[in-house]
Amino acid sequence: MRLIVQKYGGTSVGSPERIRHVAERLVATQRQGCRVVAVISAIAGVTDSLLKLARDVSAQPSERELDALLATGEHAATALVAMAVNALGAKAISLTGAQAGVLTDRMHTRAKIANVSPKQIHELLSDEYIVVVAGFQGQTAEGETTTLGRGGSDLTAIALAGALNADACQIYTDVDGVFTCDPRVVPDALKIEGIAYDELLEMAGAGSKVMQSRAVEFAKKFGVAFEVRSSLKPSVGTIAQAETANMEDVVVRGVSVERQQAKVTVTGVPDKPGSASRIFSAVSAANILVDMIVQNASGRNSTDISFTIHAADLPKVEQLLGPVVGDIGARRVSAQSAVAKLSAVGIGMRSHSGVAARLFDCLGRGGINIQLISTSDIKIAVIINEADVDRAAQLAHEAFGLGKQARVRKAP
Amino acid sequence: MRLIVQKYGGTSVGSPERIRHVAERLVATQRQGCRVVAVISAIAGVTDSLLKLARDVSAQPSERELDALLATGEHAATALVAMAVNALGAKAISLTGAQAGVLTDRMHTRAKIANVSPKQIHELLSDEYIVVVAGFQGQTAEGETTTLGRGGSDLTAIALAGALNADACQIYTDVDGVFTCDPRVVPDALKIEGIAYDELLEMAGAGSKVMQSRAVEFAKKFGVAFEVRSSLKPSVGTIAQAETANMEDVVVRGVSVERQQAKVTVTGVPDKPGSASRIFSAVSAANILVDMIVQNASGRNSTDISFTIHAADLPKVEQLLGPVVGDIGARRVSAQSAVAKLSAVGIGMRSHSGVAARLFDCLGRGGINIQLISTSDIKIAVIINEADVDRAAQLAHEAFGLGKQARVRKAP
Repeated sequence: MRLIVQKYGGTSVGSPERIRHVAERLVATQRQGCRVVAVISAIAGVTDSLLKLARDVSAQPSERELDALLATGEHAATALVAMAVNALGAKAISLTGAQAGVLTDRMHTRAKIANVSPKQIHELLSDEYIVVVAGFQGQTAEGETTTLGRGGSDLTAIALAGALNADACQIYTDVDGVFTCDPRVVPDALKIEGIAYDELLEMAGAGSKVMQSRAVEFAKKFGVAFEVRSSLKPSVGTIAQAETANMEDVVVRGVSVERQQAKVTVTGVPDKPGSASRIFSAVSAANILVDMIVQNASGRNSTDISFTIHAADLPKVEQLLGPVVGDIGARRVSAQSAVAKLSAVGIGMRSHSGVAARLFDCLGRGGINIQLISTSDIKIAVIINEADVDRAAQLAHEAFGLGKQARVRKAP
Repeated sequence: MRLIVQKYGGTSVGSPERIRHVAERLVATQRQGCRVVAVISAIAGVTDSLLKLARDVSAQPSERELDALLATGEHAATALVAMAVNALGAKAISLTGAQAGVLTDRMHTRAKIANVSPKQIHELLSDEYIVVVAGFQGQTAEGETTTLGRGGSDLTAIALAGALNADACQIYTDVDGVFTCDPRVVPDALKIEGIAYDELLEMAGAGSKVMQSRAVEFAKKFGVAFEVRSSLKPSVGTIAQAETANMEDVVVRGVSVERQQAKVTVTGVPDKPGSASRIFSAVSAANILVDMIVQNASGRNSTDISFTIHAADLPKVEQLLGPVVGDIGARRVSAQSAVAKLSAVGIGMRSHSGVAARLFDCLGRGGINIQLISTSDIKIAVIINEADVDRAAQLAHEAFGLGKQARVRKAP
């Protein structure tokens, strides 16, 4: 008998009606002859309300108490889903993370899953229960409640699927799956059927935030395949899995765009150890995330270093770097907002040459100027003017043959 | 070092400001040199919201899931109180009922406390923590969350005070304590300093709903003294305790009134076994609570049976009893609403004669007609017209020398 883990996020349980809808889906899955484990997030908005209360009573709530507080959101949602399943005449039982056997380390608010003991879940599944587990949480060896941080419910689902040796792990979201590009930008973008973990990680880092990177990393580490699919439609979604040989046949899996970026360039950085460190220490000390970092081959004992950040962080960064530039003896800082990042991602790049050339060529023919280039094993990313990014995505999407029309054209 | 258990209800933690106020009180108690255990209810309104959600997803939620759902209310409030204590620079830790060692039977939604293992609380108190425990809940031997039913947080506080051998158990409420009569009815009513468990039980059953009877019964069974006091004022409240010898010196401890009652009389009930049973089975099958039951000595093979109910239940009862009266061969049912119950309560009645006579005398002199009389070991209750009840309470209060003026008069 197939064992399926299904994860539902906060919007999927955002109202009594939606909770009943989730229950119907769980019962339908069981009636298809499956054993069913559901992982549930807190009802949308509940976690934020609890956080607000915490801030109202304490400027710096202890992380242990924050975990005790926030875990109640998933507990409540889980009990409600179990009730809704019962109301449909099926057997269901809700479990806290602790009861489900999710053991974590002691890092409150960002605990790591150390182990999952699925004995109780197995027993309940044998008794034909639909087992409804609170996501986002676990318990330390000492019995303290912990939470897993952002994307924690996805993590719970993937960890349970791994520990239970599930036949499928389905992550229900408000999107239909992972697309070759954002369909709002490229209308003939296609849903991707299968994607390698690394591709999904690079896509996630490039603005396609279907899943938190942490959950994908975990799935990759333990080899747990999962499907990202819509909680509103019955269609199949995108399966993320370990690479298979024929996955490399596709050169580029998808194109993603990230808007509202800013580019910062420090020119005339003395070519000696510690200069780059001074720059990025100053930025990270202010909790600002740096995305791309590019340094060109240096000439005449100095070099130029460019990096990208979110546009909203630009004023802060310019202010921070003013004194640093003087200290390290660099020439000056220049910055440009209203830029965007375009990435082409695919494990096929490892075995296909000329991918970068093909991207640069299509952009060049479209008259789109490339300001920065950065590549990894399976990704090519460029910074361009934000005004050009939709057209650039359409050109790249077409150049790599990703769209519906491209496939039709191939057919004859 | 004194060990104090303090219980705060839902209105006491009804806003961030009130939660901070509770925290201040806990810290002040600790700084007076006490070890402090706090028992906290869910924030006012939260339990009702959760119940509404449950009813929205299921017509008949399972009791196991209801417990899992409702227990989250106390979990959240407890974490918030602990945070607020931390914010004041004191050490605090929140515990679920399970973590606090509250073991119950398996009767979900109305579990009985089977045992309390206070080992962890003792350890935390030794480490100078203020220990904040979720009221109203416990855990079965199998690790299932249970709730204790109405008044459950009072029960938790009393059970913990007993298990910890606490020096004091303080139940914080929105009243100043237990009064000789409702001060809105009798302006010179006095706060009672000490009251016997049985007296409080009879007062509770007679409309002075300071505490649920279940919690008082539990305190009586295990000999746990507790104080009912105001969470808004610093004044001492009323201490409920086992009887002491000199407690009987006071003939009547207090007078209570219960309005909106209705009196039902079935006349000509055949004087044979089973007749009364038929009447009250019909009423209780409709989940209607009967308070007083009075049957007079019978004459000529038939008798009259009277009982009192809440006025709101009267139409239902009249409808129910119509057919029953025919079946058992009784003469008829008559009913009167707009009556009220007046009770005089005191363990001193056991050793003082003439208490009933004194009550009837004062009412008679006031021209107040008595419609029913019922007595117990320590209580005399009468049914009178609701319009007379305030005056009757004032007369009785004065007749038993309960008020401020009475004490002053005694003084000479």
